Amino acid sequence: MPANRDAASRDTTSGDTANRDITNRDTANIATPVGVTIREAVAEDWPLIWPFFSTIVAAGETYALPQDLTSDEARAIWMRERPGATFVAVEGTGGTDVLGTAKVIPNQAGRGSHVANGAFMINPASSGRGVGRALAAHAVEWARAAGYRSMQFNSVVETNTAAVALWTSMGFRILATVPEGFDHPVHGLVGIHVMHKVL
Amino acid sequence: MPANRDAASRDTTSGDTANRDITNRDTANIATPVGVTIREAVAEDWPLIWPFFSTIVAAGETYALPQDLTSDEARAIWMRERPGATFVAVEGTGGTDVLGTAKVIPNQAGRGSHVANGAFMINPASSGRGVGRALAAHAVEWARAAGYRSMQFNSVVETNTAAVALWTSMGFRILATVPEGFDHPVHGLVGIHVMHKVL
Repeated sequence: MPANRDAASRDTTSGDTANRDITNRDTANIATPVGVTIREAVAEDWPLIWPFFSTIVAAGETYALPQDLTSDEARAIWMRERPGATFVAVEGTGGTDVLGTAKVIPNQAGRGSHVANGAFMINPASSGRGVGRALAAHAVEWARAAGYRSMQFNSVVETNTAAVALWTSMGFRILATVPEGFDHPVHGLVGIHVMHKVL
Repeated sequence: MPANRDAASRDTTSGDTANRDITNRDTANIATPVGVTIREAVAEDWPLIWPFFSTIVAAGETYALPQDLTSDEARAIWMRERPGATFVAVEGTGGTDVLGTAKVIPNQAGRGSHVANGAFMINPASSGRGVGRALAAHAVEWARAAGYRSMQFNSVVETNTAAVALWTSMGFRILATVPEGFDHPVHGLVGIHVMHKVL
């Protein structure tokens, strides 16, 4: 994959990202909330991710996923291995309460695989604690270290203003808005932003 | 799927598109080249698609697909059923020589599934005969009749100027260009256009 080739050829300070955990230590410039640890997801995390993941998907307001997605289908979509990765934010250093989760995968295959795609699901119970920002910052840093050259979001629903504001504050810009790209359950047909950040 | 719901609720003249062939008769306003028929692909077409499909993918100049894609992987990507469809352009009315092929699928799942995604592979041996334009026009008409509200291309390599010119002439517009989104084997990092047309 180009992402791996890039990782080998770029000057990074992260060493072999594929075979170790990335912790707060590696991303000291990120304002991870006190008492929260971001680490790679493991299989045992899924049962703690699925309850809030399924609630967010079923609401149908922010993700273009089937609202009746099953746990197995969602797990296949979300729990990813290299060249992608999945992260969780948990309480404390040994915690298992999942506050939110992030996924990074190549946005395209082949000669488009140096562009990362990121996706995020934040447990509503941990809203307002900065978990989304910390996960996004972690995902960006991880993607950069892994050799991705940019990160692209294909489908940010324009009515999801909190997400748009967050990504914008983190240096993502709106490349385009697909008109009427999303059939919002409350607002009807609304635009979808394509957002992008050079890493 | 929203596309099916839309098909049921929209005023179309096409009847039950899911259970019949769409032929030139249905798309009389499309300049299909003389002697060429566009029909839905069947399993027996794949061995005639794969030779030129694989050549195009291996060249790596226009598609963000793995250049070592296998026939089975490609068939799974390309030969699609409802709510998508795959078409072939063949010689004559009963011909089996495949001149080119088109695929239409929902660009997103769930509440994004009213936007179609289209993709096209033209046999280089039939270049210059208008096969690409005819297939694209057919795909657009089919998608409209099936209830899709727009068609989006996520990844038109900007150096593929023939494709950009063709889509533009057919009413697609460039919504955005993802900077350095494609690692072209000759030109290096070039942009990828997101293109869009309301149906």
